[in-house]
Amino acid sequence: MDWLNDSIMVKRGVAGASTGATHHLTEDTQGEFHYTIGPYSDPVLTIAPGDRVIVDTRDAFDGAIQTEADLPSAKLTLPFVNPQNGPIMVDGAEIGDAIAVHIESMDPRGDDPHGACVMIPEFGALTGTSLTATLNDPLPETVRVVRVDSESVYWSERVTLPYRPHIGTLSTSPQIDSVNSLTPDAHGGNMDLPDMGPGSITYLPVRSPGARLFIGDAHACQGDGELCGTAVEYQSTTTIKVDLIKGWTLDWPRLENEEVLMCIGSARPLEDATRIAYRSLILWMEAEFGYDRWDAYMMLSQCGRVRLGNFVDPNYTVGAAISKSYL
Amino acid sequence: MDWLNDSIMVKRGVAGASTGATHHLTEDTQGEFHYTIGPYSDPVLTIAPGDRVIVDTRDAFDGAIQTEADLPSAKLTLPFVNPQNGPIMVDGAEIGDAIAVHIESMDPRGDDPHGACVMIPEFGALTGTSLTATLNDPLPETVRVVRVDSESVYWSERVTLPYRPHIGTLSTSPQIDSVNSLTPDAHGGNMDLPDMGPGSITYLPVRSPGARLFIGDAHACQGDGELCGTAVEYQSTTTIKVDLIKGWTLDWPRLENEEVLMCIGSARPLEDATRIAYRSLILWMEAEFGYDRWDAYMMLSQCGRVRLGNFVDPNYTVGAAISKSYL
Amino acid sequence: MDWLNDSIMVKRGVAGASTGATHHLTEDTQGEFHYTIGPYSDPVLTIAPGDRVIVDTRDAFDGAIQTEADLPSAKLTLPFVNPQNGPIMVDGAEIGDAIAVHIESMDPRGDDPHGACVMIPEFGALTGTSLTATLNDPLPETVRVVRVDSESVYWSERVTLPYRPHIGTLSTSPQIDSVNSLTPDAHGGNMDLPDMGPGSITYLPVRSPGARLFIGDAHACQGDGELCGTAVEYQSTTTIKVDLIKGWTLDWPRLENEEVLMCIGSARPLEDATRIAYRSLILWMEAEFGYDRWDAYMMLSQCGRVRLGNFVDPNYTVGAAISKSYL
Amino acid sequence: MDWLNDSIMVKRGVAGASTGATHHLTEDTQGEFHYTIGPYSDPVLTIAPGDRVIVDTRDAFDGAIQTEADLPSAKLTLPFVNPQNGPIMVDGAEIGDAIAVHIESMDPRGDDPHGACVMIPEFGALTGTSLTATLNDPLPETVRVVRVDSESVYWSERVTLPYRPHIGTLSTSPQIDSVNSLTPDAHGGNMDLPDMGPGSITYLPVRSPGARLFIGDAHACQGDGELCGTAVEYQSTTTIKVDLIKGWTLDWPRLENEEVLMCIGSARPLEDATRIAYRSLILWMEAEFGYDRWDAYMMLSQCGRVRLGNFVDPNYTVGAAISKSYL
Repeated sequence: MDWLNDSIMVKRGVAGASTGATHHLTEDTQGEFHYTIGPYSDPVLTIAPGDRVIVDTRDAFDGAIQTEADLPSAKLTLPFVNPQNGPIMVDGAEIGDAIAVHIESMDPRGDDPHGACVMIPEFGALTGTSLTATLNDPLPETVRVVRVDSESVYWSERVTLPYRPHIGTLSTSPQIDSVNSLTPDAHGGNMDLPDMGPGSITYLPVRSPGARLFIGDAHACQGDGELCGTAVEYQSTTTIKVDLIKGWTLDWPRLENEEVLMCIGSARPLEDATRIAYRSLILWMEAEFGYDRWDAYMMLSQCGRVRLGNFVDPNYTVGAAISKSYL
Repeated sequence: MDWLNDSIMVKRGVAGASTGATHHLTEDTQGEFHYTIGPYSDPVLTIAPGDRVIVDTRDAFDGAIQTEADLPSAKLTLPFVNPQNGPIMVDGAEIGDAIAVHIESMDPRGDDPHGACVMIPEFGALTGTSLTATLNDPLPETVRVVRVDSESVYWSERVTLPYRPHIGTLSTSPQIDSVNSLTPDAHGGNMDLPDMGPGSITYLPVRSPGARLFIGDAHACQGDGELCGTAVEYQSTTTIKVDLIKGWTLDWPRLENEEVLMCIGSARPLEDATRIAYRSLILWMEAEFGYDRWDAYMMLSQCGRVRLGNFVDPNYTVGAAISKSYL
Repeated sequence: MDWLNDSIMVKRGVAGASTGATHHLTEDTQGEFHYTIGPYSDPVLTIAPGDRVIVDTRDAFDGAIQTEADLPSAKLTLPFVNPQNGPIMVDGAEIGDAIAVHIESMDPRGDDPHGACVMIPEFGALTGTSLTATLNDPLPETVRVVRVDSESVYWSERVTLPYRPHIGTLSTSPQIDSVNSLTPDAHGGNMDLPDMGPGSITYLPVRSPGARLFIGDAHACQGDGELCGTAVEYQSTTTIKVDLIKGWTLDWPRLENEEVLMCIGSARPLEDATRIAYRSLILWMEAEFGYDRWDAYMMLSQCGRVRLGNFVDPNYTVGAAISKSYL
Repeated sequence: MDWLNDSIMVKRGVAGASTGATHHLTEDTQGEFHYTIGPYSDPVLTIAPGDRVIVDTRDAFDGAIQTEADLPSAKLTLPFVNPQNGPIMVDGAEIGDAIAVHIESMDPRGDDPHGACVMIPEFGALTGTSLTATLNDPLPETVRVVRVDSESVYWSERVTLPYRPHIGTLSTSPQIDSVNSLTPDAHGGNMDLPDMGPGSITYLPVRSPGARLFIGDAHACQGDGELCGTAVEYQSTTTIKVDLIKGWTLDWPRLENEEVLMCIGSARPLEDATRIAYRSLILWMEAEFGYDRWDAYMMLSQCGRVRLGNFVDPNYTVGAAISKSYL
């Protein structure tokens, strides 16, 4: 892909255009998966900048939902959901740096690949929840298990959806917090952003030595907002290349693909997530692309693009993007 | 356009595929423009379903911002901004019906077309406002006046933006309220949704006899969210065709174009606007397209699309859409 | 009451300590009650500053809920609820002035006084609503009709609550909007603030000639937040004295009683209502009480008091108060 | 205090009315203070149910603000603020139990007791923040250092405030998260609730073996909302008695004092914190006090009381209370 050679990752990364060793983080080498993202867990792998890692991710239900009779209330035990691979240590990563995670490919994993989507009581955008606490009866627990291949998600007899894989949860470690894997925040986390698929590069802040990269929560496809609370959750083989950008200090994650640069914010209410994302983008345009701050603000009013990641998790996630053609 | 023949407007409208008389609502025939949208103003025009109206809209500043020296605080007097054409009465429209407004074309108006974008003190998404009340000093008042033609918006020496016209404010009258033209709500209003341009059909609820259609606030282009509070505000010649759909009772506005059906919600906080839009869409899929409610909910979790209209007005606006290919 | 002599109303009002004529606004003299608050309705009474008005208010259900078998869905027709007396014109009131409304007394009205509290489907704080739109089944419609006298509200065999009357809805007219009587905003409206009872003085902005005072929605008692959406709604005889303060321009309503000065904000989300109220209070302390802005900000961090009015209406209402002993 | 004998703590606690050993948790025995609240730190003390602990708390600034020239930006290093004593292990506390923390007394500590209140850039309720991200210039950094004694807080020449001490941060450990001490959530944390002073009993959920009690952040006084972001922060000697209630599983913290029972919620937006608190209270009234759910809902609409803790932290905190006279 030609655009990669002009990406921030290649231009500013320690490894640049070169690719190093390839590691395979299987379920076995992972061993215990993680339900919190923080500085207190033992590394499973140490890589050099520019290395490639093939990651075998589990689905967000840890494989507990195999048939449509597997009800979440019976099969899931909060907070032990959304298992994460990692932490992967990146050589030379120090507080104040950034790491770049280029997702090269995502494939369904297993002999008979399928994905599951569930309605969990008091979870989702169109129901009272543990936070938007109401007295209504919960929605019915409902489970969909659907076949997935590298072309399509076979949703129903009526509808076949395109396979649009992406990683739901991608993080470095916070400095002192250890955050459950359901919550996105300034370290990344459970952002559930459909743009974070093959062909994207995510930039994450390094807040602890070695960066401590966590990854999991593959989605075969997802609409804007992850409305009912879950995407088509599946187990994947996800191949990433990781590089290190020294001295690039980020407040919040950023994303690059062939078309756009994007800044990501996660907060409640949803307007605050959007504010964070857009402010980051303006300050970035000012700091690195020669824009006057007010020109950037007014211009994004005319050409900014917003992607809603999730509005179901403890924080909601929004990406604000600008076409690279303007930069 | 072929898809129009399969649109809800053509299939269910009183006039169907036929087009009636053409009316020209000039500034002169409009006379006094309106700053509230309600049942208390005198009609300027009565049309039959299927009629076409060529509307000369004023810009949102009523023409008061002509140069970059025209500061909002000196030139604008709240609440007398965002002037609206109308009300246009639609023959036969009764409470419980809907009207369809097909935007056929939008052209810059005047000899030397230009548009203006301004930063108004305590207005916009990235500043303390009259509602998100802070003690910070306001942002600097800044004015941009840029040339517009039917191809481009000439934003700066560095950046030329594509001409992507749309109507910012489109409404029927509420039943008993008269709402200032800055506020979007269940009657439509200042939604600032970039999808509402040529090639779109907006469906609006009839809540007073004759529907009382108001229209104004043309934008030459706008990014998602209308970040700084204003788009490229310009005066336009906007041609619409209006039809009437009997007995179709809508809680909130809806939109159709060649690709999607969309439901629109306006509220604060932003998640509530999104909830309204998505819930409307699910209930619509259930009522008219044969979807089971929970199937629709879970499927939109995989393929729903969200457009942020504004997050700067007294209510924020979101559209939730589904590809027609699934309906 | 001695403190009245030191109140802003007496010190700055046109009438001062003197009281003028007494008017009785009966149901008959009111004639048609109003469901919107705006500049488009015909006055029912004109008074001089300092006059007293005895107002016969209807309950918020217009008397439609008389027994516990009267279900809201059968008996109420939105938006025709919360009937308002008025508009009362105040001689000499001009845009930019304020009026003071001193509630002198509130008594249950009728031979067998009672009040009603109802759970309306999709209305209230602990349920999905038309704005916080969910797919949950609504809560059960439930109606309580309870006896009220000037001492107590006889809630149940188990619980007797103290009679703590106040006015739920008090307004001047907005400048150009006509706002349904369910929505509080900068003009006052449906604030549902328990402090607004006998012994309180509310200050309201004049935004149209004559002020156009509206009043209604008496509550025999109400907890903070009006949790289920309704208080003990009853018909009252409410006696008010109204005065005019020239040249006192208010952005939002304010309230005074023997103990405190309070500023009132109404918005969503709830933090914005609170921000509005506290900012108004700080700017007031700076403008009229000799406080440095930052001293006021930091001091209210130590001694400010917040009252939650409603968090069920289209806007939520908060009062932020300071003890007069600090002023 | 007589009411204590009827408190939940005494009636249901393992120790009941008896008091065990007294421990003194000095700065020395504490050693390293903690900036996260979680399961990964080493215990400093193990107590039996019914034991008393005298805790020497540091102020929220770790003593770094001693004079009004000590600017936060120079003296504070986020996230290393709000130091916590603990974790204190409670013998026999198991997941699913609750602990009761009775605050017996709070005294200023040190030879010349004083407290500090600061305005930190981009922190506080009336400013753009890192989450409500704006482009406005921050408010001026301002520091107040004021004398405190057991009667008063000597705020200024003009104003003396009453000494109303309370603990800002009180927590058990979450199950798997380790949460920075600035953030309140379902485990307690930085609630900043003025009711949490001497004479109060706070009930906290046990989510890890031994409960792991953390305590810190004493305030000499605080208004509702902790408006500017900080109270009068001081170092205290706080004496608590801790008991254990077996098998009492709490979703969120609760509080009891002589007058009321209160449920506490922490979330954004502020209405969600309020919803959590009120829903908890209703479900509690139903589960333990013989109330019908809808009767409780409607009755709290008439007599519920709301206290705003903070609306400045990453989550906002609200307490919803009912008079014990109704229980």
